[in-house]
Amino acid sequence: MTFKVDTSISPKRSLEILSQKEVENLRVTSKSEDSLHALFRQCALAILHSGKTTDDAAAMLDAYNDFEIDLIQQDRGLRLNLTNAPAQAFVDGEMIASSREMIFSALRDLIYWQSIRQSSSEDLSTSAGITDYVFHLLRNARALVAGELPKLVVCWGGHSINHEEYDYCKDVGHELGLRKLDICTGCGPGAMKGPMKGATIAHSKQRINDGRYLGITEPGIIAAEAPNPIVNELVILPDIEKRLEAFVRMGHGIIVFPGGVGTAEEILYLLGILLHPDNADIPYPLIFTGPASSEAYFVHLHEFIGQTLGIEAQQKYRIIIGNSQQAAKEMAAGIEAVREFRIKQNDAFYFNWALKIEHALQQPFDATHENMAALNLSLELPKHELAANLRRAFSGIVAGNVKPKWVRHIKKHGPYQIKGEPAIMEPLDRLLRSFVDQKRMKLPGSEYIPCYELID
Amino acid sequence: MTFKVDTSISPKRSLEILSQKEVENLRVTSKSEDSLHALFRQCALAILHSGKTTDDAAAMLDAYNDFEIDLIQQDRGLRLNLTNAPAQAFVDGEMIASSREMIFSALRDLIYWQSIRQSSSEDLSTSAGITDYVFHLLRNARALVAGELPKLVVCWGGHSINHEEYDYCKDVGHELGLRKLDICTGCGPGAMKGPMKGATIAHSKQRINDGRYLGITEPGIIAAEAPNPIVNELVILPDIEKRLEAFVRMGHGIIVFPGGVGTAEEILYLLGILLHPDNADIPYPLIFTGPASSEAYFVHLHEFIGQTLGIEAQQKYRIIIGNSQQAAKEMAAGIEAVREFRIKQNDAFYFNWALKIEHALQQPFDATHENMAALNLSLELPKHELAANLRRAFSGIVAGNVKPKWVRHIKKHGPYQIKGEPAIMEPLDRLLRSFVDQKRMKLPGSEYIPCYELID
Amino acid sequence: MTFKVDTSISPKRSLEILSQKEVENLRVTSKSEDSLHALFRQCALAILHSGKTTDDAAAMLDAYNDFEIDLIQQDRGLRLNLTNAPAQAFVDGEMIASSREMIFSALRDLIYWQSIRQSSSEDLSTSAGITDYVFHLLRNARALVAGELPKLVVCWGGHSINHEEYDYCKDVGHELGLRKLDICTGCGPGAMKGPMKGATIAHSKQRINDGRYLGITEPGIIAAEAPNPIVNELVILPDIEKRLEAFVRMGHGIIVFPGGVGTAEEILYLLGILLHPDNADIPYPLIFTGPASSEAYFVHLHEFIGQTLGIEAQQKYRIIIGNSQQAAKEMAAGIEAVREFRIKQNDAFYFNWALKIEHALQQPFDATHENMAALNLSLELPKHELAANLRRAFSGIVAGNVKPKWVRHIKKHGPYQIKGEPAIMEPLDRLLRSFVDQKRMKLPGSEYIPCYELID
Amino acid sequence: MTFKVDTSISPKRSLEILSQKEVENLRVTSKSEDSLHALFRQCALAILHSGKTTDDAAAMLDAYNDFEIDLIQQDRGLRLNLTNAPAQAFVDGEMIASSREMIFSALRDLIYWQSIRQSSSEDLSTSAGITDYVFHLLRNARALVAGELPKLVVCWGGHSINHEEYDYCKDVGHELGLRKLDICTGCGPGAMKGPMKGATIAHSKQRINDGRYLGITEPGIIAAEAPNPIVNELVILPDIEKRLEAFVRMGHGIIVFPGGVGTAEEILYLLGILLHPDNADIPYPLIFTGPASSEAYFVHLHEFIGQTLGIEAQQKYRIIIGNSQQAAKEMAAGIEAVREFRIKQNDAFYFNWALKIEHALQQPFDATHENMAALNLSLELPKHELAANLRRAFSGIVAGNVKPKWVRHIKKHGPYQIKGEPAIMEPLDRLLRSFVDQKRMKLPGSEYIPCYELID
Repeated sequence: MTFKVDTSISPKRSLEILSQKEVENLRVTSKSEDSLHALFRQCALAILHSGKTTDDAAAMLDAYNDFEIDLIQQDRGLRLNLTNAPAQAFVDGEMIASSREMIFSALRDLIYWQSIRQSSSEDLSTSAGITDYVFHLLRNARALVAGELPKLVVCWGGHSINHEEYDYCKDVGHELGLRKLDICTGCGPGAMKGPMKGATIAHSKQRINDGRYLGITEPGIIAAEAPNPIVNELVILPDIEKRLEAFVRMGHGIIVFPGGVGTAEEILYLLGILLHPDNADIPYPLIFTGPASSEAYFVHLHEFIGQTLGIEAQQKYRIIIGNSQQAAKEMAAGIEAVREFRIKQNDAFYFNWALKIEHALQQPFDATHENMAALNLSLELPKHELAANLRRAFSGIVAGNVKPKWVRHIKKHGPYQIKGEPAIMEPLDRLLRSFVDQKRMKLPGSEYIPCYELID
Repeated sequence: MTFKVDTSISPKRSLEILSQKEVENLRVTSKSEDSLHALFRQCALAILHSGKTTDDAAAMLDAYNDFEIDLIQQDRGLRLNLTNAPAQAFVDGEMIASSREMIFSALRDLIYWQSIRQSSSEDLSTSAGITDYVFHLLRNARALVAGELPKLVVCWGGHSINHEEYDYCKDVGHELGLRKLDICTGCGPGAMKGPMKGATIAHSKQRINDGRYLGITEPGIIAAEAPNPIVNELVILPDIEKRLEAFVRMGHGIIVFPGGVGTAEEILYLLGILLHPDNADIPYPLIFTGPASSEAYFVHLHEFIGQTLGIEAQQKYRIIIGNSQQAAKEMAAGIEAVREFRIKQNDAFYFNWALKIEHALQQPFDATHENMAALNLSLELPKHELAANLRRAFSGIVAGNVKPKWVRHIKKHGPYQIKGEPAIMEPLDRLLRSFVDQKRMKLPGSEYIPCYELID
Repeated sequence: MTFKVDTSISPKRSLEILSQKEVENLRVTSKSEDSLHALFRQCALAILHSGKTTDDAAAMLDAYNDFEIDLIQQDRGLRLNLTNAPAQAFVDGEMIASSREMIFSALRDLIYWQSIRQSSSEDLSTSAGITDYVFHLLRNARALVAGELPKLVVCWGGHSINHEEYDYCKDVGHELGLRKLDICTGCGPGAMKGPMKGATIAHSKQRINDGRYLGITEPGIIAAEAPNPIVNELVILPDIEKRLEAFVRMGHGIIVFPGGVGTAEEILYLLGILLHPDNADIPYPLIFTGPASSEAYFVHLHEFIGQTLGIEAQQKYRIIIGNSQQAAKEMAAGIEAVREFRIKQNDAFYFNWALKIEHALQQPFDATHENMAALNLSLELPKHELAANLRRAFSGIVAGNVKPKWVRHIKKHGPYQIKGEPAIMEPLDRLLRSFVDQKRMKLPGSEYIPCYELID
Repeated sequence: MTFKVDTSISPKRSLEILSQKEVENLRVTSKSEDSLHALFRQCALAILHSGKTTDDAAAMLDAYNDFEIDLIQQDRGLRLNLTNAPAQAFVDGEMIASSREMIFSALRDLIYWQSIRQSSSEDLSTSAGITDYVFHLLRNARALVAGELPKLVVCWGGHSINHEEYDYCKDVGHELGLRKLDICTGCGPGAMKGPMKGATIAHSKQRINDGRYLGITEPGIIAAEAPNPIVNELVILPDIEKRLEAFVRMGHGIIVFPGGVGTAEEILYLLGILLHPDNADIPYPLIFTGPASSEAYFVHLHEFIGQTLGIEAQQKYRIIIGNSQQAAKEMAAGIEAVREFRIKQNDAFYFNWALKIEHALQQPFDATHENMAALNLSLELPKHELAANLRRAFSGIVAGNVKPKWVRHIKKHGPYQIKGEPAIMEPLDRLLRSFVDQKRMKLPGSEYIPCYELID
């Protein structure tokens, strides 16, 4: 049974003052499927659902199909009226403060998207234009803080990891927090929640009242990876590529916990950047870490990277198994090197302008059968291009595994055909099989039916 | 002799993070007369000059024609390099904090203007579009604060008043501050500084640490009425009409001190709004006050208003002479009525959306001889239209008195010809003569040569 | 192996400014066993050891017998020099902020004890005098906060509970924290840490930055129950009775988790107060709660209380098994009743002056064989006196179980002889046996050898 | 006519939590003349009267002889009931926040005196004991702030100076405030208010929200020199000598404005300390400054000091006439030297422990005819002893001029006979005559009748 609540909330902070026109644009009366209101309703629902873990976003959305949220201008400003909201976001009838805040954060970002769309000031057809867009959105969300030393650690990893992995994530977060570092994740459960929880306790011990637990998400993923309530800053980017760019330009270092094919996609995205010749001299601490029982995940990844992108790529990260303290210590040292580098280069601390991200990596990849078949996977390519193409392959597999549109496509047209040299296809096959063996692929039934075929 | 200083400053607060493109747009290299950079340089110079009082803005600008300000992106963000800056903004070589803050406020507003100009989201051809523009600019400047009770008193009056009037302004500000009210002015010297100074001392006595001393200005006036250093929030609107709308929509009540023809213009602008039939039921406390020695100024104004706009217009304000405590008490009571009204109407406290301002009052008035001659000044007009036209007449006279472009025009083409019914022209003549007698007209030499002729 | 660290720390906050005489009194040169310095050294060592759990305080003290702490007056005030300090209180060589704060809290309290001892202003021979002493010590520690609504929940229970019980304590703390309640405990591990940890996460979700995690301890217990690092306010009272009075007068409600004979002692102390006729009308929410697997503990206690103190005593508390949300909800409701009562009575929120605590309950109980044998345990006694005597019996058993001095006494003179009516001795015997069965007695070897004999 | 108000106030801050016994001790029922309640009532009345300037404290006390203040314990703590309080401390019926705060500060200090009196921990018969007493009282008042750089400037001077002198004091305070320095004065009107007012405006310009305006007073002077409402920290010491010691040990530098014989007394007190051989190497910035029109005051003082205490004494201060900026600049430089010295010596910044103050200077001087006649005024004495004796002479003259008890004595027994070497008596005579000429002696009628005779 599903408990539901009707309520009405108003912002506690002053960021969310809207004009009458902005309110009109977001009101329930504008009903179309991809209207701003529909997007806002979906984000709000995911936020309110954050206590519960579910892999089946569709089922969740279904259970609350009578949920509604509307804006009204009222005395002393804006109010939101909610009907049939998930009860778990409430304590004795009152909405938990973090949920209320996150709903207004979503509102803020969606209104900003709209103002940008109507503006000619951002040219999204160029690489620089996209970077500017990401910058402006983060600035509008007050996520870029001048005058702060580098201390933001991005944590990536699976949202449905096992208990041991979760506890390890908490430990790493605790060790990072003791070293006064902040946490940024994709803001769902699992490896995205554990580090924040550990850091919260550690920041409390270190008497840090303003620790940041920054969640960066996008509408396509927010329902499946609902923001956990520890998140105290939420930013919603318009799509997955801008979200990845936000991670990479805001973070001062990245820790990767065990995950699945999605985590592999993120790693390849990052290697695609770090292997670019223009970025050769920019320090970027990158650590793969997990409990001893998860060693296999990283062993297979490491082998795959070695066989396809070579030893150079393997130099871009460190693997630390079963030692949360060591992982945090090395990250702290790495961030210190970032600080020194930025000072020497007169770079800002809050946004990594210097990093070259090719236009190709900024573009959404459309996982059609044609695009998948056309991927150029050859050892002849410059390493950063090969990494970018491998990232697209993983992106397609994620889509074919879980995104409804592409799942239907595959049912109709058969699995994707991914072609490439044997020297790449064979390691790729081994890696994907290891994910299946470790049960890190999404399992619709008891057995994983691959959405792809690898063709040498 | 003029002391000058070279220095470099960076923002203390996090509002002022710029993208690389924004920095480029504001760099010194873009040299044209009305470039963004030229505007910024002019605002910065006025801010740095704020300690000194001068009526002769041109002379000031001239004395610092070698002043320059440039932006550089540097470690931990933005820096501004200043060369040949006025020494009075510095203490032992360090810029006074309020000056530094105000320069970054100017930067913030100018960058916002530019982003708006390039956007299609604001339609400045409609009344609602202009109001939205004012709203967005104030929001971007964080001047709209949700969750605060109404307590912002706008103070208008002359920038070059006598010592007795200045002390009285301070007294009224002190009494307002003791009643925990905040101050908003046009941010220059005289009646724009006195109330802030008095309120600062009173807020200190009342242990109010976050008192607001809000200055609202525009580029055409900032050099002549340089922001006084008490101002702790500075907002620069693009022109005089938007500045007036900002005063009227943000303020919860208005106090008018003695001034000159400019102050008369402001009063007529406000009466043009308050006399509009749509605004008949909206409470708006309005008090004219000054020391006993300045009674004549208000007596003449009151007579003029009675003779042209009638008794109804005289009901819109209260005149209180020589009693600063009484003025503050009545303002506090009036603001309490505003609070009750807004709650009943579900209106926001921070922006007076309900007030109808006709498009005509939102448009800049171009003081050509033709426009001045064509003004319709007839008792037949609805009172709020007559008030609007009288406001234009005063606006033209201000321009003809002090704005270099129009001063030159008049030298060439002779004085403005203002035509109207004798029932209006005669009181207008008496009022303007009284200003001359009281030495409230700007005096280029020893004798005031009117820039206008009144024609029945 | 034991890692040790030498370091030097100074206070971050301004509370701890000492005179030169005060510094001299605490310097290492004053070497005697019960010198103020020896007490301070012992408290500091316990605080630094807080990460590790140990039941064997003696072993811990032994392992760090070369630990030393000394005070020096230095530029910008006081510094402490530490040598051979436990490494676990440090992160990469820097002391964790909470440990540093707690050491200065201990310093503050010990200096206050000394100033009180030298003063004639507190008369510790009267009940009112003892209450005043507790009040002044808490005030000096800034633990009494005017203007705050009642929201401090005292949590009692064992320091070495099982994993399931610990998780349940965290859950209850989380539910209390979601209801914006603060936590006060004896500040050791187990049931004293869990609720604070849960509340920390919940306060973070509710965006509460100033949640209180108040630890109240005394020198005799601090080594065995070292303050956990979540504690953000530490107060050290001079003995166990003043510590109990501090709990009871500061708390707005009490939750009891499973514990051992020490927890039973605390319950009887509290019933001794609540059953006093003068306190009949004073609301005091009291909840016994634990996971389903711990039900037996409360069942046996409940029976014992019924059989000795009667149904009236059973009305003073509520037992809630396996429902952390319900426990928190009822506590919140109970505290609301406290708020209303205090307002009606014009009582302060921060200190429960109204509660009558008899002088007998304020006096340390000296667990000699004579005193134990002389305890009057008879159903004839007024219930609150019987409760007070039973509390003494439990206090003696705790001492005989764990306190070195009394353990030696018993080795020499044989077990305590506790005499009383069979109607009391039999339930007491059953209760104590149940503690042994549940392994809630301290076990020096594999089998518990009772330190007492019950004699009808 | 005198307007009076009945009201009831409670503390906004948490410092003022009292025990029931403390409340009883201060209640109105304890009626004796020098009861704690009588002292408290007198301090409260002076605080409430602070807006008005009066030289005639007796008349003021008389006008409010029906004023009463009582303490009641109430819901959420303490309340004070006031009847027939001076209306000027209220705005529209509500007490000004600074007055409310200062009344609770007085309460805090008086309660602390009492606790000290009942304590044996302070030995007031030794020099170290008195210094400890001053330290503890200031610490209890939270006036000693660790971790702050030296920045407290003590300003001395007359409370009834002329308008020009007052404006100059404001200017100096403004220049000090622009240099981020704080102000400490005797907390009355005139030279004790002006610097605070100037610094308030300057701190506002420098965006300093936590500027300190510290007032240090004592019960014998508080009625005549009522704390001005700018004071945001008030400390009441028990007598004039402890007040002087508080100034000298807390201040990082002292500025002396024109005053009268009381100001001369303060200067000689300070020279008595600075000339002590033990203090020879301790930097202590001391500046005498006033407007050009007040030059005579300092010229006569300077001559007198040269003729009696010699050139060495003249090296201890700098005289700066008519240049407020220069005075502030030199004080800032002097304080920088203090900072460096304290760091080198490992001295605290918040309390000048190093300064030797002889027991003689810490003792109240009883201005009997015998004591005055017995003063040893000889050039043979060590300079610091002669300074101390001269200070006593001035202290006696102040008492004979204004303190009711000694005025009566002189009426009965004739003027004091002050004896000494001609080389001292003659300069003393000239100095005192110059004070009379400059109208800096208190004038009971139109002509000053000296309370002393100088005898060679």
